[in-house]
Amino acid sequence: MFFERVAVIGVGLIGGSFSLVLKEKKLCGHVVGVGRSAANLKFALERGLIDSVASDVAAAVRGADLVLVSAPVAQFENIFQEIKAILKPGALVTDAGSTKRDVVATARAALGAKIAQFVPAHPIAGAEHSGAAAANPDLFRGRRVVLAPLEENSRQDIETISGLWTVIGARVTRMTPEEHDAVFAAVSHLPHLLAYALVNDVSKRPNSAQLFGYAAGGFRDFTRIASSQPEMWRDICMANRDRLLHELHLYERKLKAIGQMLEESDASALEKLFAEARAAREKWIKGEYE
Amino acid sequence: MFFERVAVIGVGLIGGSFSLVLKEKKLCGHVVGVGRSAANLKFALERGLIDSVASDVAAAVRGADLVLVSAPVAQFENIFQEIKAILKPGALVTDAGSTKRDVVATARAALGAKIAQFVPAHPIAGAEHSGAAAANPDLFRGRRVVLAPLEENSRQDIETISGLWTVIGARVTRMTPEEHDAVFAAVSHLPHLLAYALVNDVSKRPNSAQLFGYAAGGFRDFTRIASSQPEMWRDICMANRDRLLHELHLYERKLKAIGQMLEESDASALEKLFAEARAAREKWIKGEYE
Repeated sequence: MFFERVAVIGVGLIGGSFSLVLKEKKLCGHVVGVGRSAANLKFALERGLIDSVASDVAAAVRGADLVLVSAPVAQFENIFQEIKAILKPGALVTDAGSTKRDVVATARAALGAKIAQFVPAHPIAGAEHSGAAAANPDLFRGRRVVLAPLEENSRQDIETISGLWTVIGARVTRMTPEEHDAVFAAVSHLPHLLAYALVNDVSKRPNSAQLFGYAAGGFRDFTRIASSQPEMWRDICMANRDRLLHELHLYERKLKAIGQMLEESDASALEKLFAEARAAREKWIKGEYE
Repeated sequence: MFFERVAVIGVGLIGGSFSLVLKEKKLCGHVVGVGRSAANLKFALERGLIDSVASDVAAAVRGADLVLVSAPVAQFENIFQEIKAILKPGALVTDAGSTKRDVVATARAALGAKIAQFVPAHPIAGAEHSGAAAANPDLFRGRRVVLAPLEENSRQDIETISGLWTVIGARVTRMTPEEHDAVFAAVSHLPHLLAYALVNDVSKRPNSAQLFGYAAGGFRDFTRIASSQPEMWRDICMANRDRLLHELHLYERKLKAIGQMLEESDASALEKLFAEARAAREKWIKGEYE
């Protein structure tokens, strides 16, 4: 498995780490990066994350054997349109978008006949730190990468992308775009929304300084994901709006039930709920759901 | 500052760490421990967290100059009644309860004329690990300890307890019991409830194994506090029921507003909310609310 020329569109945490590990493992000849921030690209070049900087997407994709689209999902439409005009036969495109139904729809509309060359993917390796400065070649080791292959993809192309992530150290699984978006609405998108909501709520109080003054380790960990990029999470929430609303409503129903337990001073119901949650989490932490 | 004989009632994370640091800093002559679990007390004795084990609270408190009540709050009523019968004049009692209005009411009812000897406190040093095995002499370093002194306390006794925590390395502040319970409902009790709710919700789904299988670092940190002791958190929720319900309702209102933003596809309102939350959290993390 070897790609002579790789284009990374969006050299942030994901794109930079992907490029770095490809170079470290000698899986490619040359990585060209492109992105919105000249400073970020300069940093990526100086730190050796990429080998050269392209002036635009077309210049990056020209001659590329593999293209990773790891820009914010809101930019995918323009990026895919540029890719379509330039992508050479036999080259593969994959992505790192956090949602999959919208990415597939966008790609299908923009890539036209070249849609078979696009194998959608989602490496589960976010962090609250972003940008090339956060890149690290071990980012994907042991992490899951979800492939959401299209019916147009050849079995060989799917195997190539799957094999690439496996060589990088990731654990590859497959889902449909619908299944992907439903799962991540529950275990990723909703928690982000809940953490943002709590911090925002506290920050709007007249005594917010006092409240933050007494917030401790539990609050810090609970709200860590509220330090995630607002723009990225806005896009994820909008792209997965229907599934996220569904999860939000289920959660609101749960909170209502808990409020009822409190209203009724039902201590044993509360303890049961807490104990079940704790047991489920301990099972998860022990790796019993891997 | 030196206490010849210290009684620690409940030699868990807090009681064990308190005892350990007192001994390390040579602030006491002898620490006697008492608690519900013989195995835990044996461990604490063998590891040198305490110097001896008492068979009951009365035996522990007999002759003590300082008593720390660091048992679950639900046991405080019985403990205070036993303390009342035995506590010698001039001795001080303090506690580590996570709620303060109920502890003060319980102490007032049980201690009677000896209430002036009790200086209520709450060291903010919880962790999801519990028991003597988790004890560590640095647990309180840099952490806040809230004193909620009573009007019956002498200024000198308050200063003694305050000074003790300061020598241990904690940052001591004062609040009324009402203020304490309102603040911690917002920044500690509600987040625990929210984390338990999410894990419980996910664990009840038909596809819970799949969901946990894709839960990653964000979910892990968000739900860390859902691994806290169910019994302890049941008691905290019951003791602070009214303030917690108030916070829960404010949060439900916030979620409703966010649901509305999603329904209306109001991307800019969502981004604003996320950005404000992130900015407030970054300010907090940088220590601007210390």
